[in-house]
Amino acid sequence: MLPTSLPAPRLIEPNSVPSLRWGIIGPGGIAATFADSVHKHTAQRVVAVASQTPGKAEAFATPRGIPYALTSYQELVSHPEVDVVYVATTHEFHKEHALLAIAAGKHVLVEKPLATNPTDAQEIQDAAFSAGVLAMEAMWTRYIPQSDVMRQLLSDGVLGEIQFVLSDFGQDLRHVPRLMDPLSGGGLLDLGIYNFAFSSFVLGEASEVATVGSLTSTGVDQTTTTLLTYASGAQAVATVTMAAFTPTAASISGTKGRLNIHEPFFTPSGLTLFASEFNPNPVASWRDETGVPAHEGLSYQATALASFVDQGLNDSPLRPLHEAVSDIGLILQARHQIGAFLTGEK
Amino acid sequence: MLPTSLPAPRLIEPNSVPSLRWGIIGPGGIAATFADSVHKHTAQRVVAVASQTPGKAEAFATPRGIPYALTSYQELVSHPEVDVVYVATTHEFHKEHALLAIAAGKHVLVEKPLATNPTDAQEIQDAAFSAGVLAMEAMWTRYIPQSDVMRQLLSDGVLGEIQFVLSDFGQDLRHVPRLMDPLSGGGLLDLGIYNFAFSSFVLGEASEVATVGSLTSTGVDQTTTTLLTYASGAQAVATVTMAAFTPTAASISGTKGRLNIHEPFFTPSGLTLFASEFNPNPVASWRDETGVPAHEGLSYQATALASFVDQGLNDSPLRPLHEAVSDIGLILQARHQIGAFLTGEK
Repeated sequence: MLPTSLPAPRLIEPNSVPSLRWGIIGPGGIAATFADSVHKHTAQRVVAVASQTPGKAEAFATPRGIPYALTSYQELVSHPEVDVVYVATTHEFHKEHALLAIAAGKHVLVEKPLATNPTDAQEIQDAAFSAGVLAMEAMWTRYIPQSDVMRQLLSDGVLGEIQFVLSDFGQDLRHVPRLMDPLSGGGLLDLGIYNFAFSSFVLGEASEVATVGSLTSTGVDQTTTTLLTYASGAQAVATVTMAAFTPTAASISGTKGRLNIHEPFFTPSGLTLFASEFNPNPVASWRDETGVPAHEGLSYQATALASFVDQGLNDSPLRPLHEAVSDIGLILQARHQIGAFLTGEK
Repeated sequence: MLPTSLPAPRLIEPNSVPSLRWGIIGPGGIAATFADSVHKHTAQRVVAVASQTPGKAEAFATPRGIPYALTSYQELVSHPEVDVVYVATTHEFHKEHALLAIAAGKHVLVEKPLATNPTDAQEIQDAAFSAGVLAMEAMWTRYIPQSDVMRQLLSDGVLGEIQFVLSDFGQDLRHVPRLMDPLSGGGLLDLGIYNFAFSSFVLGEASEVATVGSLTSTGVDQTTTTLLTYASGAQAVATVTMAAFTPTAASISGTKGRLNIHEPFFTPSGLTLFASEFNPNPVASWRDETGVPAHEGLSYQATALASFVDQGLNDSPLRPLHEAVSDIGLILQARHQIGAFLTGEK
């Protein structure tokens, strides 16, 4: 029998963890959303920001009351008042900036994807483990309430044996230069990482990847649909496009139940449970009513990181680095299968 | 601006069309649903049924008050009281039985897919056109109310230029012998035909097909995800599996709006319209409240066929045969791309 209600998420009280002092490298759009969300919803505080573009750090820091606006990344990572560095530069710089923070002995939150290829991602993991600091991919979806509801459903076996995971993510982003640029562009690295991380959340590491897709005029992956196969026999399909706004929904199908994750699946949304049959009625549902909407959910990962640091962990138990490395490896295979190579890869 | 309400479907009043006398070849499950739905919701009447299995036609006919229970298909198609034949045998027999009806000068409704390959499907089209009878694929989704709502939205350009069509269809059907059998089994022919027909409904005939997937133990296609590309640059992705119950939803993404077709997309369900942006609120929706639920929607195609016959048409304007031929051709390519061959194909 399927349950008629879903479990409540187990959330970390933001004031129960140390108030870490954060430094940001790369004050672009995602950094702004992060800083504002963190200040609004958590005990974490951004104290420093660095940009190599003159004036950019000040423009970011001043309205937010952030005391240190710097032009040197080295200065930021070695600043004595910085406990943890958030790397929010474009994808091709994640490794360089993460290693800079790690070398300075700082914990680091690296914007997703951890790197543009598994070799670089592994180098970040190795450096962090050697240095004894916590490096964490900013896969913020793992830390939002619905992910904990799903975690409980999965560990309780409510859905039975998992057979299939389906997700899509589409936005028309062909006007965004960095995403069209073969330096680190393409739909998979920017959007698809959420789909791949969702599949690994449910099913672990895939054993096979098979992709069909098409390229943009600049040669990055525009549209892909990827079939992932797992040792258990389960499968996942991730459809990603940067050429249209799609529902951006996900579902988990098991022998006993199916769970729909509401649109957009990677942000605070909702869950509906169905029996595994044709045209079922919903049997239970849950809606995120925490008042932390959409991308303000970035804040949860900051509280989680502070909690892990407080516990002396050097890897996130909810998104271990080996999983980020593995997902980047699958994405690289997917990209190459359709002939999408980044600058220097071919 | 997107409209805040969706147009009402233009439906054919069932009593406004001639009450045709139907003969059924192959009284299995789908034929039972068809006969019962037609008798409940339309002016059409099943008057004869034929099965080569002794007793099967009687068992079907008696409780339904169908006067003629026959063991000969030839007798059924040439019966003077039969106006139109519904071919509801397994896929590998569609061509043979459709041609039998056409040769007898009868109109014919052929269960989907029209045939298992485009050559056979084309042969049905050619025979029907030559004989001057109406042959129609039983792609019943085309005739349900929501399809007419969509037809109006599409012809009015409400969604803008169509960029992307997404659909999935999954049921765990691995226990059904006919679907596991390489004679005419596999997920694409039984389920995926709905996805392909949905894509062609919106975008016409695809110019390219690319598929990844996996096979069952019996060598038919189990799970596939297919990327279809159109001359306009639009794309469609159809994900099909016979190994799990998936949401079975669909969506149409355009430059102005996105339309979600509710689960299960191919049966009477509902529509929700969104702006083409990230995480939009719904702007309009429509729900099927005709009281003809799920597979009882099979009845609409019978009324439609009678209307076409009444108008002297020899092809369905809503699902022309060339489209059924084309969709079967795409499915054949998709199957062969993943190494799924039917008996005799290799």
